Amino acid sequence: MAGETKRYHATPEDLAAWDGPRDLGFPGEFPYTRGIQPTMYRGRLWTMRQYAGFGTAEESNARYRYLLSQGVSGLSVAFDLPTQIGYDSDHALAAGEVGKVGVAIDSLDDMAALFDGIPLGAVSTSMTINATAIILLALYVAVAKRQGVSPRALSGTVQNDILKEYVARGTYIYPPEASLRIVTDIFAYCEREVPQWNTISISGYHIREAGSTAVQEVAFTFANALAYVQAAVEAGLDVNSFGQRLSFFFNAHNDFLEEVAKFRAARRLWARLMRDRFGATNPRALQLRFHTQTAGSTLTAQQPDNNIVRVAVQAMAAVLGGTQSLHTNGRDEALALPTEDSARIALRTQQIIAHESGVANTVDPFGGSWHIEKLTDGIEAGALELMSRIDAVGGTLRAIETGYIQRQIQESAYRAQQAIDTGAAVVVGVNRFATDERPTVEVFALDPDVERRQIERTRALRAGRDQTAWTSALAAVTTAASGRDNLVPPIIAAVEAGATVGEIADTMRSVFGEFREVAVD
Amino acid sequence: MAGETKRYHATPEDLAAWDGPRDLGFPGEFPYTRGIQPTMYRGRLWTMRQYAGFGTAEESNARYRYLLSQGVSGLSVAFDLPTQIGYDSDHALAAGEVGKVGVAIDSLDDMAALFDGIPLGAVSTSMTINATAIILLALYVAVAKRQGVSPRALSGTVQNDILKEYVARGTYIYPPEASLRIVTDIFAYCEREVPQWNTISISGYHIREAGSTAVQEVAFTFANALAYVQAAVEAGLDVNSFGQRLSFFFNAHNDFLEEVAKFRAARRLWARLMRDRFGATNPRALQLRFHTQTAGSTLTAQQPDNNIVRVAVQAMAAVLGGTQSLHTNGRDEALALPTEDSARIALRTQQIIAHESGVANTVDPFGGSWHIEKLTDGIEAGALELMSRIDAVGGTLRAIETGYIQRQIQESAYRAQQAIDTGAAVVVGVNRFATDERPTVEVFALDPDVERRQIERTRALRAGRDQTAWTSALAAVTTAASGRDNLVPPIIAAVEAGATVGEIADTMRSVFGEFREVAVD
Repeated sequence: MAGETKRYHATPEDLAAWDGPRDLGFPGEFPYTRGIQPTMYRGRLWTMRQYAGFGTAEESNARYRYLLSQGVSGLSVAFDLPTQIGYDSDHALAAGEVGKVGVAIDSLDDMAALFDGIPLGAVSTSMTINATAIILLALYVAVAKRQGVSPRALSGTVQNDILKEYVARGTYIYPPEASLRIVTDIFAYCEREVPQWNTISISGYHIREAGSTAVQEVAFTFANALAYVQAAVEAGLDVNSFGQRLSFFFNAHNDFLEEVAKFRAARRLWARLMRDRFGATNPRALQLRFHTQTAGSTLTAQQPDNNIVRVAVQAMAAVLGGTQSLHTNGRDEALALPTEDSARIALRTQQIIAHESGVANTVDPFGGSWHIEKLTDGIEAGALELMSRIDAVGGTLRAIETGYIQRQIQESAYRAQQAIDTGAAVVVGVNRFATDERPTVEVFALDPDVERRQIERTRALRAGRDQTAWTSALAAVTTAASGRDNLVPPIIAAVEAGATVGEIADTMRSVFGEFREVAVD
Repeated sequence: MAGETKRYHATPEDLAAWDGPRDLGFPGEFPYTRGIQPTMYRGRLWTMRQYAGFGTAEESNARYRYLLSQGVSGLSVAFDLPTQIGYDSDHALAAGEVGKVGVAIDSLDDMAALFDGIPLGAVSTSMTINATAIILLALYVAVAKRQGVSPRALSGTVQNDILKEYVARGTYIYPPEASLRIVTDIFAYCEREVPQWNTISISGYHIREAGSTAVQEVAFTFANALAYVQAAVEAGLDVNSFGQRLSFFFNAHNDFLEEVAKFRAARRLWARLMRDRFGATNPRALQLRFHTQTAGSTLTAQQPDNNIVRVAVQAMAAVLGGTQSLHTNGRDEALALPTEDSARIALRTQQIIAHESGVANTVDPFGGSWHIEKLTDGIEAGALELMSRIDAVGGTLRAIETGYIQRQIQESAYRAQQAIDTGAAVVVGVNRFATDERPTVEVFALDPDVERRQIERTRALRAGRDQTAWTSALAAVTTAASGRDNLVPPIIAAVEAGATVGEIADTMRSVFGEFREVAVD
């Protein structure tokens, strides 16, 4: 009977080719579909890590202290655009952007102020920084040293995922080959000196925000990841060693069931890729560890309180999917940076899921669900198919350079927008259930004086530093960039000699050159 | 390996005694574990039915019109306490309660004003009314007739679940035996005259709100349900006929996975009870149809926006559990009646789940999940065990009269409160993550003049009606109550003759007497 008409439920028949022991296994065991630890959140909750940063270091520091007082378990630093693309706050291209989408960091003094009163040995810090990841990592290590904290005690992440910048996010500086060398230098340095640090956070988040599907998010993220692993292996690093410090960053989008399945599929696929393509054997190098952020692009400026609901549903999917770390967006993020109130509600969302909803008590509660197992299989197969097409066009770098990946994301984004425009996809409060009401939430207002104050501080730093030490420190960066020595040590020395983010980035620009965007039709 | 230590995940081993075809079947097929329709929300979304009512009929009418303009698909009327326990607004016992927790309805004129401009043939209306359900149903039918709508075209529900009033909620009037006779009269009348009407909404909601566990909620609800079915069968009604108009009302509480399983277990158990105890064969008499409301008792006065998150998570459980109808609570309901803003956000929560989260596209997506199937089995078995103990103490009425059921609920409530007091159970913003901040939400303020205006109106009605017609109409109610004739027709005639809710209730009080609460130690 059930087979005669269209069926909207899954049954065991949907899993005919499915092999439980092979495809699922147990939590904490290969292929980790059900989670990377046997006890998951019973052992330790995910890290509640709220992305924040704006204005000067002092203002952001105050927000971090507030978030810590409210119960976040990890920091997550947003940098402003100039910092992300290697321009100091007084650079002509920085005008109007200083401290806007994140904190402005030009120097070691700024970085020290950012973490003032926050002991770096006791907190885990994620930094959303890519083209200049190596400079911000150097600054972080230098601040730790100032605080008397050994780099060996540091934990956290630099995003350092430059490939998705070419694909989706845009804050690149150097050409891909040079960028990959920098990434590899960070891997190698941290393996020796900052062993608890996650050296990269390979990000599907921005690929999804740019409009990709869930399958594309997984496929393109892993295509990038394979390029990093390949580059590191070619540089002589051991996959069982650096492989355990790779971390990932995914989006928790609207489609609840698909998202749960996506996280499960991603874990299984990554374990298989690392085993089969690189011969990894260390369980920690096979385990997909990931941070998740709810989907900023799904939030609406209209009826901002509705976003609390969207974020709650998306966050539930991330937790049911077994994330290691989570950022929940503020209700007002389609309007401005989140206010303190909105940031607190977003954190409370995680705390309610963690402590009231009971879902943290069970590992992989969807395990065995025919629908979810079917979706999991489908996402893995779909991602593998896309990855094999990338292999066929010459691999990740080639697929980026020719715009092959970008084009697929754009097509998906176009289709998604069309569905909204025609009403086939409903956005509550926007194309249905709209009202004339204006949002009544208080909106965050950035101090308009930030840019002037920041510029003054950076200029004062330049005037006061030891010019000889500064000159020779930057020269050492040039030498390392031109040769094969690891770039991290001379950059740490340079920031300690007062060199700014923009100056160090410029030094490398002069060696590596700059990348120009690929036109995608 | 997985078996050696404590295991927090379910596996196929947990379902050793489980028989898929027997225990699960397909959606739309016995025992309906996966849902009562084969296509569930693909065929039709659940009814979005927001409980509301306050002040006078005119004020509540304005709120209903607002909710309809915002997209609710069903009305749900909250009555004030005097209306619920059969006192007119000018009764001494009504003082201070008129229009407070719901709308004040004394007369047919009030009821007509409540639905002014709302065509009763085109809307489905649920009325939370129990001891006076028969009077409010009569008023609804009388308003329909005034609007020119045939009672045969009416759809909706009277809660009419008097047994749980003795157990958990408190708005009873007459002794249980008389109450059961009234319930049965409603069944019989509607079967003939209002065939699309759900004659009862047997409610676990208030049992849960009073502090029961999920298993107790199912067990005590079904214990009450069996008493109604038994009474109706004894009154000569056909279980395959009146059985299809029984509806249920459950709570969507915090424990997400347990709640999903609870709804599934309840469907299976009800189908089996109706088949095995009463020999029901009509599929519609075997199918558990239920309304769900998010758990008001979980909402906090502190940090009211957190309640948006709780409601979203609870609503997701209701939808994943296959509810037919849903009320989502307002964020401010721990402080006051919901404002229009809060009511809108609550409705948007349902709309986002329905239209954005994708969960409505799949029937029973948890089906096959070892954890959920195990929980489902456990809840069914636990409820059956509690029901057999109620049988052992002499059945539902006896268990209520001796306080047996009340005592078990109180014990659960005590344990739950203790867990909060000791911090073993976390309430975010209350016993953890508390702040000094005062809620900044606007709170609903009831017009203080409501009581005076309502009293004036009712007194004017009394002064203006035809006293002879009124006297003989009430006499006919007395005659029916004293004998065996169905009470509904004379009550309809009485409200049309201008008799008030209080007067009709008093008339029946003089025949049936009043019930006094059982002391529970």
